[in-house]
Amino acid sequence: MSETVTIAVDAIGGDAGAPVVLPGVEAALSADADLKVLLCGPADVVEPFAAAHERCEAVVCTEEIEMGEHPAQAVRKKKDSSIVVGCRKVKEGAADGFFSAGSTGAVMSAGTLVIGRIRGVKRPALCTVLPAPKQQVLLCDCGANADCKPEYLLQFGQMASIYAEKVMGIASPRVALLNIGSEEAKGSALAQEAHALLAEHLPNFAGNGEGTDILSGRFDVFVADGFTGNVCLKTIEGTAGALMGALKGVFKKNALTMLAAALVKGGLTDLKQSLSADTVGAAPLLGVKGACTVGHGSSNETAIKNGVLTTAAIARAHVSDLIAQEVQPKSA
Amino acid sequence: MSETVTIAVDAIGGDAGAPVVLPGVEAALSADADLKVLLCGPADVVEPFAAAHERCEAVVCTEEIEMGEHPAQAVRKKKDSSIVVGCRKVKEGAADGFFSAGSTGAVMSAGTLVIGRIRGVKRPALCTVLPAPKQQVLLCDCGANADCKPEYLLQFGQMASIYAEKVMGIASPRVALLNIGSEEAKGSALAQEAHALLAEHLPNFAGNGEGTDILSGRFDVFVADGFTGNVCLKTIEGTAGALMGALKGVFKKNALTMLAAALVKGGLTDLKQSLSADTVGAAPLLGVKGACTVGHGSSNETAIKNGVLTTAAIARAHVSDLIAQEVQPKSA
Repeated sequence: MSETVTIAVDAIGGDAGAPVVLPGVEAALSADADLKVLLCGPADVVEPFAAAHERCEAVVCTEEIEMGEHPAQAVRKKKDSSIVVGCRKVKEGAADGFFSAGSTGAVMSAGTLVIGRIRGVKRPALCTVLPAPKQQVLLCDCGANADCKPEYLLQFGQMASIYAEKVMGIASPRVALLNIGSEEAKGSALAQEAHALLAEHLPNFAGNGEGTDILSGRFDVFVADGFTGNVCLKTIEGTAGALMGALKGVFKKNALTMLAAALVKGGLTDLKQSLSADTVGAAPLLGVKGACTVGHGSSNETAIKNGVLTTAAIARAHVSDLIAQEVQPKSA
Repeated sequence: MSETVTIAVDAIGGDAGAPVVLPGVEAALSADADLKVLLCGPADVVEPFAAAHERCEAVVCTEEIEMGEHPAQAVRKKKDSSIVVGCRKVKEGAADGFFSAGSTGAVMSAGTLVIGRIRGVKRPALCTVLPAPKQQVLLCDCGANADCKPEYLLQFGQMASIYAEKVMGIASPRVALLNIGSEEAKGSALAQEAHALLAEHLPNFAGNGEGTDILSGRFDVFVADGFTGNVCLKTIEGTAGALMGALKGVFKKNALTMLAAALVKGGLTDLKQSLSADTVGAAPLLGVKGACTVGHGSSNETAIKNGVLTTAAIARAHVSDLIAQEVQPKSA
């Protein structure tokens, strides 16, 4: 039996909203008997669902943050939105974590402004588990901080290392700095200074890794400033999309190639599955006081389910407490 | 008939050296009747080849810059290396361009230190034509400048735009700034300031493009600082490699999947070909006084041939003169 945790969930986040979120939450509740959900959203969405499900409580919100809104402004203005209310539940201790498939920017803002930074953390960072054919790789930061200082990157490495060990179950994660050459003197001024800090303070720092190394299985964690990390993440997505699209063209050429497609259908489906973000479902915002995660806007039911379960796993692993211990000033 | 051009070629560049470079040069000379080659390298390599080929002159060099050497130091020290001598031929006007498949760093250093920057160009930039399934895309800078200022990125856009038009034949290239969101206020401080400069000074600037857009065909040119550009380039390479590797696994599973592989072999070969860098063969260093290009270390004969021909095309298009006109102070 696992520890009982309570996760606040944004009932209306994601491109498809409640029609996808609710079945996802239902599946998560079924899969995890020690999970409680505080379902945040409009009364007509959350109340009937909570009434019909054990371990689910309705938290009625009257506002909604839309995808196009300026994140920080929306968080400040819409104090009764599902994202702000969900984060407030974590802040107040009523929930151990918050999950939303809504606006990534709004969740990052609410995580930082409402839940609050862990003392000693300079900048919370968004981590993504990259779906790679060989193994999962954690990329941190993926876009929370476009402009970074070397000491932020050190903390990204420390926080991501804890996450990789405690949530992904990698005993001694090999942490790489995303750089443009393997030698330590390579890269921008930021990368060179970050390299020196990581080498000095992170015992499992494994040196520089390049773009070609990300999906190679050589490293478990990649540390990057949020600008480079976001470009990298979206470049992987774009390249995989372009290749799979081109491949589809190859298979659709004629009757024989369509026969070939039928013969490898199972394998291709498995490959697509291994590249899918649905199996993780949630990108954690590390460095805030609680488990706070964001799902992809295009999340399906499975992704929502796994996103909620991942958030529960982060809460159970006490990732925030471990980060607090790691980053707090060592002097008494 | 095209304009006669003379290209200095590093006879010993690339992982395989002369055994691959010489047949490549031979093929280039056959393909272009108005091409002359100054073949730079050791006497025993270049003299017999020059004696056996019309329009080829031997330039004997006694030194070689190895792949592991510190680029700028090697260029300063080894004044009789094939890379330095080839660039000197351009500087002296004996050649219109230089091509090497040797150390990218050494060619960038020699291009800047020996051939010299065009007056008004702040930083020469390395451009790569990305082999995309749909169309070619030019990425600039790919690693010459790890730390950039906004005004460098403006010039990268101006130089790459000229290259895309005059060498790649794209009438009015759509130039994007590689960024982490489509809105103009997105991104790092560098990206935001570069966006403002590009919007003001580059008529064919098409706004921000994200990692997902690179291979989509939406833009012809991507402008980036050399750090982000290099990470992006290598991430594309790594993602494509990981996917093609995983795909191989799908096809090798059993007799039926191997039959499928046989049925789509032609299409897969075409797809691989469309992703191959061999068809371009050369990455230009834009902003120096002459055509100066680098081939991939793993270039084969076809890549060397195309690299030499691309260098000749850059020289014939007078790209350096056009860049000089574009970037020189408009006053006086």
